[in-house]
Amino acid sequence: MRVSQIRIPVDGLPTQWFNIVPALPEPLPRPKDPDEGPSRLGQLQRIFLSSMLEQESSQQPLIAIPEEVRELLVQAGRPRPLYRAYRLEQRLGVGRGVRLYYKREDLSPTGSHKVNTALAQVYFASKEGKKRVITETGAGQWGSALAYAAGLLGLECTVYWVRHAMEMKPQRLALMKLYGADVAASPSSRTECGRRLSSANHSHPGSLGIAISEAIEDTLRSEDAVYCLGSVLNHVLMHQTIIGLEAMKQFELVDDYPTLMIACLGGGSNFGGFTLPFIAEQLKGKNETRFLAAQSEAAPNLIKGEYRYDFGDYAEHTPLMKMFTLGHKAEMHPIYADGLRYHAAAPLISLLRSLRVVEATAFPMGEREVFEAARLFTQAEGFLPAPESAYAVKAAVDEARRLKRDGGEAAIAFNISGHGFLDLDSYEKVLFQ
Amino acid sequence: MRVSQIRIPVDGLPTQWFNIVPALPEPLPRPKDPDEGPSRLGQLQRIFLSSMLEQESSQQPLIAIPEEVRELLVQAGRPRPLYRAYRLEQRLGVGRGVRLYYKREDLSPTGSHKVNTALAQVYFASKEGKKRVITETGAGQWGSALAYAAGLLGLECTVYWVRHAMEMKPQRLALMKLYGADVAASPSSRTECGRRLSSANHSHPGSLGIAISEAIEDTLRSEDAVYCLGSVLNHVLMHQTIIGLEAMKQFELVDDYPTLMIACLGGGSNFGGFTLPFIAEQLKGKNETRFLAAQSEAAPNLIKGEYRYDFGDYAEHTPLMKMFTLGHKAEMHPIYADGLRYHAAAPLISLLRSLRVVEATAFPMGEREVFEAARLFTQAEGFLPAPESAYAVKAAVDEARRLKRDGGEAAIAFNISGHGFLDLDSYEKVLFQ
Repeated sequence: MRVSQIRIPVDGLPTQWFNIVPALPEPLPRPKDPDEGPSRLGQLQRIFLSSMLEQESSQQPLIAIPEEVRELLVQAGRPRPLYRAYRLEQRLGVGRGVRLYYKREDLSPTGSHKVNTALAQVYFASKEGKKRVITETGAGQWGSALAYAAGLLGLECTVYWVRHAMEMKPQRLALMKLYGADVAASPSSRTECGRRLSSANHSHPGSLGIAISEAIEDTLRSEDAVYCLGSVLNHVLMHQTIIGLEAMKQFELVDDYPTLMIACLGGGSNFGGFTLPFIAEQLKGKNETRFLAAQSEAAPNLIKGEYRYDFGDYAEHTPLMKMFTLGHKAEMHPIYADGLRYHAAAPLISLLRSLRVVEATAFPMGEREVFEAARLFTQAEGFLPAPESAYAVKAAVDEARRLKRDGGEAAIAFNISGHGFLDLDSYEKVLFQ
Repeated sequence: MRVSQIRIPVDGLPTQWFNIVPALPEPLPRPKDPDEGPSRLGQLQRIFLSSMLEQESSQQPLIAIPEEVRELLVQAGRPRPLYRAYRLEQRLGVGRGVRLYYKREDLSPTGSHKVNTALAQVYFASKEGKKRVITETGAGQWGSALAYAAGLLGLECTVYWVRHAMEMKPQRLALMKLYGADVAASPSSRTECGRRLSSANHSHPGSLGIAISEAIEDTLRSEDAVYCLGSVLNHVLMHQTIIGLEAMKQFELVDDYPTLMIACLGGGSNFGGFTLPFIAEQLKGKNETRFLAAQSEAAPNLIKGEYRYDFGDYAEHTPLMKMFTLGHKAEMHPIYADGLRYHAAAPLISLLRSLRVVEATAFPMGEREVFEAARLFTQAEGFLPAPESAYAVKAAVDEARRLKRDGGEAAIAFNISGHGFLDLDSYEKVLFQ
């Protein structure tokens, strides 16, 4: 029997997160305050959990996953399978030397990898005595994941959701409400910042910068609340390494090893989570794997960005971080894969890019060819990827076709970071209209 | 560590389907032709696969699952986990003696248990040299599952979809098209029957009866096509026993055994798939488990139906089958859990009901209390059930609350037959408007 599904047992779930920071060949540039204005670093201390700030700057290579968090990850369905894509290989007609694999984060309860860090963050919030978690969301994947985690742990959850994005996604809004979250269209009437903008314009479309401002204002005035972030930061990427650590065990089971790893990249938590454990092995000289980030031409931060200090957000609330950035005020064309629209890549990924460990490719904003690759994958393998994940599929399919033409061996591993059940309108528009 | 997820390894996937027919205490009444009109039994021979007709009347207690079908079931993610619902138990505040378990068919690629039989049927179609599978669909779950299976195996798939249902579900339509299916709004211009109706009224809303007529007409005139059905028939229920067979192994792993099994029931394939292997043990005197079907008051066939010969469809295309039926021309109130709106229960389940092995309960058509139970489940366990599955959740929650009040021990197992990501509009309407 040809077994496409590669599983590790439940008790094979990793017991430690992987922290690449101490293994880096040069120190990770630290965040800093801008020359003018209030101290952003000082504000971080007030709005984040102390345990998260500790993880953020930890020099420990492995950090124990608390037993309660492991229970939550198992509840969320982990470990998730790795698949050998026999059926896709067959459709592509690649030779025996080309092996395709994909990891199934689409099996997440909310539909994306974001739950991996949401569960950890809400657990630590609860442990530090917080009663409420606060965040902002753009595409909505992060807001759903935090709402889910808060629901499970019985904490309150407030999500400031960019109004125009929220109005386009009534189903995802219903999902957040089902989990019990309190969702505010941003700008809202709950904060000074929001009231100022919405009193001038009741149907103000909002922006991620405004939503961040509202979330931070709400956190600062609430004793028992904490602010949570779903990407970019070291500790978020570290929580996501559960993906790559599982994949490593799964490759051992089938006695193979990826020669090329592909994940889509907006801010970098999905890409980092999948690749960092393998990148660390490369830094020790143990592999020659290529690590390829799949991006959109709407936000090709690793390709067209400059490696310099920049704010993480439009409204300049965050400290300055050294990142490949298109500029924190950059205007980015709307695309269906909204999760890939971020102006900069996480500091960790950016450093690795500057060291030429990480490669990147970007696909056109029309998205037709990306959605076509997703259609091929869906018919061959049966699973519907999120539009973001479709970028990884496209990059993998391109590489497989190149190898078919030019010859060569490869084990290509890509990550299906989420499912597309809440994105079928986008598929309809791109492929069938 | 408290492990909520109970898994069997991939190579623990059952190797045989379970056929309860030879174990029944009295013979299953055979389908028969009505006194008047053409022979429906004769027509079955022309539109169904011979291997399916053979399975339909088999007296073998166990039927080997072909290796290729087992590969497909593994590709689709099987075996699926059974969960101990620790978090739901905690929210309900039940005592230590009350244990809740649920099986996760919501992990299906298309979102429901229907893929289990779709993969088998399309495999056998391919083996018998067919190039195309044809069906009709109402709610759309069966159409998606058949489209998915045909996509994987490279067969063509034609779905006649009741027009008014299709128009309400653009996302599910996009999903079927992504799998490569050819979807016709019924009545269509492709068949004589359809043309007759749609020429008189271009926006004819259609009905399941009309869609069946179209699918059968299309099959009869096509040499290399076959007609497929997603519920009611013996072989369909048998393909679904993979659910119960897996659950049986999973209960062995945790050294427990269900004292009450609950599944929602429309035609009966989900209920039968989950319970039949356990019901067979009861027929051998090995357990005293209760088997409870969760229904809607819109279609309480096991409760208000009569046990008699009736047609399986409005248009009288099928042979007469002995079933608990509300009458094949019964009008049923629309509900969001559309998959539960069927006038009769499968002959197998109906016989077991007449023998008092199967119990049934029905919930009000307003569906509010059912959706409330689903909300509780979603917040406690993190998974969003399909509206149909929410009926099983509701029945399980009611029973747990009763035990909390009255005392007593129980191991309650229920089946989450599908996910609700394509039903969030229904959740919004029932809970938030």
